[in-house]
Amino acid sequence: MAKPGDRVKVVTKEGEIEGILMPNEETDSVVVKLDNGYNIGIDKKKVKKIDAVKKYSAKTEKKGKLSVNKKLPTISILHTGGTIASKVNYETGGVIAKFDPAELIGLFPELKEIANFDSRLIEQMFSEDMRFEHYKKIAGAVEKEVKKGVDGIIITHGTDTLAYSSAALAFVLERLNIPVILVGAQRSSDRGSSDAAMNLICASEFIAKTDFAGVGICMHEKPDDKNSVILPACKTRKMHTSRRDAFKAINDTPIAMINYDTRKIRFLRDYGKRSDSKLVIKEGFEDKIGLIKCHPNMFREQFDFFKGYKGLVIEGTGLGHAPVDPPQRLNINILESIKSLVKSGTIVVMTSQCLFGSTHPHVYTAAINLSKAGVVYCKDMLSETAFIKLSWLLGNYKDKEEIKRLIATDLRGEINPRIEPEQYLE
Amino acid sequence: MAKPGDRVKVVTKEGEIEGILMPNEETDSVVVKLDNGYNIGIDKKKVKKIDAVKKYSAKTEKKGKLSVNKKLPTISILHTGGTIASKVNYETGGVIAKFDPAELIGLFPELKEIANFDSRLIEQMFSEDMRFEHYKKIAGAVEKEVKKGVDGIIITHGTDTLAYSSAALAFVLERLNIPVILVGAQRSSDRGSSDAAMNLICASEFIAKTDFAGVGICMHEKPDDKNSVILPACKTRKMHTSRRDAFKAINDTPIAMINYDTRKIRFLRDYGKRSDSKLVIKEGFEDKIGLIKCHPNMFREQFDFFKGYKGLVIEGTGLGHAPVDPPQRLNINILESIKSLVKSGTIVVMTSQCLFGSTHPHVYTAAINLSKAGVVYCKDMLSETAFIKLSWLLGNYKDKEEIKRLIATDLRGEINPRIEPEQYLE
Repeated sequence: MAKPGDRVKVVTKEGEIEGILMPNEETDSVVVKLDNGYNIGIDKKKVKKIDAVKKYSAKTEKKGKLSVNKKLPTISILHTGGTIASKVNYETGGVIAKFDPAELIGLFPELKEIANFDSRLIEQMFSEDMRFEHYKKIAGAVEKEVKKGVDGIIITHGTDTLAYSSAALAFVLERLNIPVILVGAQRSSDRGSSDAAMNLICASEFIAKTDFAGVGICMHEKPDDKNSVILPACKTRKMHTSRRDAFKAINDTPIAMINYDTRKIRFLRDYGKRSDSKLVIKEGFEDKIGLIKCHPNMFREQFDFFKGYKGLVIEGTGLGHAPVDPPQRLNINILESIKSLVKSGTIVVMTSQCLFGSTHPHVYTAAINLSKAGVVYCKDMLSETAFIKLSWLLGNYKDKEEIKRLIATDLRGEINPRIEPEQYLE
Repeated sequence: MAKPGDRVKVVTKEGEIEGILMPNEETDSVVVKLDNGYNIGIDKKKVKKIDAVKKYSAKTEKKGKLSVNKKLPTISILHTGGTIASKVNYETGGVIAKFDPAELIGLFPELKEIANFDSRLIEQMFSEDMRFEHYKKIAGAVEKEVKKGVDGIIITHGTDTLAYSSAALAFVLERLNIPVILVGAQRSSDRGSSDAAMNLICASEFIAKTDFAGVGICMHEKPDDKNSVILPACKTRKMHTSRRDAFKAINDTPIAMINYDTRKIRFLRDYGKRSDSKLVIKEGFEDKIGLIKCHPNMFREQFDFFKGYKGLVIEGTGLGHAPVDPPQRLNINILESIKSLVKSGTIVVMTSQCLFGSTHPHVYTAAINLSKAGVVYCKDMLSETAFIKLSWLLGNYKDKEEIKRLIATDLRGEINPRIEPEQYLE
């Protein structure tokens, strides 16, 4: 019997189809990867038989070998791992095997028509383990490619912390003058339902055909395969555990939309354009940064824990509130704890777990008191971005008053001074 | 010159309007509360003059005095405070003054046509300070009203932690056989733009006209004043810091919609109906529960902190991942820390910061390892609900294995076994 990975000939009433048999979660169809790289699904009811033409062997997998077309722009792919780089391991049945970068490009033959690709392996990791040291490593690799004069960079990345990484790179890569697009997938690249091909192709088209400069994210707009969107590096969040349209702009608008079918690109708002600015790498990150999410029934010890930390992001409730007025008899003085953190030199900043809308330090007593205690309100910044930005500021700037001023100042599009109604849940 | 709170006569080209001058953020209109309780906005361009008929005095505020109509159902309002109970203090200009319950009912004369209202002051607090002891107090008050035989209960509540409280009450009030609807407002009740009246009126209509039993939330569907929705107690989140339609069902559908204009009520899905079941109060809550949100660059000490806690909710990334595979040379063994927590008796459970979609313990290595370490995956449960439920389970059940089983079992609609596509961001 033919197994996934085998080269097969599928015989149907209408004719024969030859290609590589793909693993498939759906029970009512057979998926075959054709020699042109496309996957085709065949209704099982129509299948008469499946003949194995050549048994799968790990050694038969071709590395993508790419010829150079001088008329096309050059894109470097920096490979960090994640689902986009995952494939079913036909020997074990698990999904832990990884594509190497050339192999990944080789999977999608259409890419060759858009640009010349070069690729480098930075990591082979799932993104929940990303650390500041990885951001530095990626930034260093970006710098090298920029110096080589490439037209743009694609970073393949796991989706779990992809939006944290895009924010980190946006801060580190100051005056970036080419597009650096993070691309992920919610389904591994060798599955029929994978979003990898479309996101990679759309990101490549966007790099090849526009004058955009800066960091962005390219993922599906909707669950269908109509459009991919370029999302803002500091105002995007993974909002679904499994859908292909998991990434959404929060308090912001996607930058551009790429129609997968027509390849037409439409900008949805203003954006930074390429220039002759010289890239400055500011790669410092302070390790001692905490993030605390407020909830009912908190105790002082949960805030006291961050004594000695250089920075703390409080993900407050509503407009930016922490439980600073508990019943007096309980003697839970969270406001005292926060004051003491501030006094000892910790920079404490406030965001909101609502995600949408802005925090506000002057409407209610809790916020007024927190603000008086020295807590800096981050306006409409995401907690995730505030965590990255605070660490980055502390890693690159010395003066605390300047850091406090900069955290609430828009540097990379992380603060939107004018949130539009349509930038809420669509 | 007339000040807010004064009884005034506004003279326009078209005639005179008498009522109480209201504070108004909009600069182009004058807002007057008419004797029938409605606010009217008058274009400033049309205003010839404003005469003060009677200066404001704190003593002239009427307490709502309500006559009983035996044909109408009886609704008890339990008052806990929040913005819905806030008003501009005409003497200081601040917003710290509070409505007492009778006064709040008196503000909205339409309520009298829907039901007979009784009201009790439970708290006068902003909800960021809500603690488990407040949930017990509210539950005790609900029990008293149920025993009196009221037809339904409205709980006025601050919006910051309203959705945590609705989950808490859903668990505490087992076999509840009347509707208990939490109602908040994003703008204080005496403002022209307040959402308080509509939410209170729609909640009252819903209680008076339907056979629903259980805990729900009544807030605006959209920013306009067309519909209020009844939202599920355990699957709702405050998703915006300031909009009137801040509350959204996550991985779920609103239960019902009430048209403010026509008062027509439409159920959007199945719901629990009134019966002769007898209310059981399970009011235990364990204090030693933690909530940790995963982010890049975590250290072991951040997990070790929860040693001695009875329960811990890990708000993971993606399908439910924590950074358990950092570079080996860093010697940051977060998986060891979690194993050690589990070993010492802490019940550790996993949710996702994506909010939408379900966690999954078997797709990726990180989750498989966490699962093996004894972490219980909470399916599509919100972190906020998981925090409340875990504390509640530990407060009411003794057997740890039973608690681990119950945390991942749907008890009050907190787990949706079949998330529909339209239950994502609309």
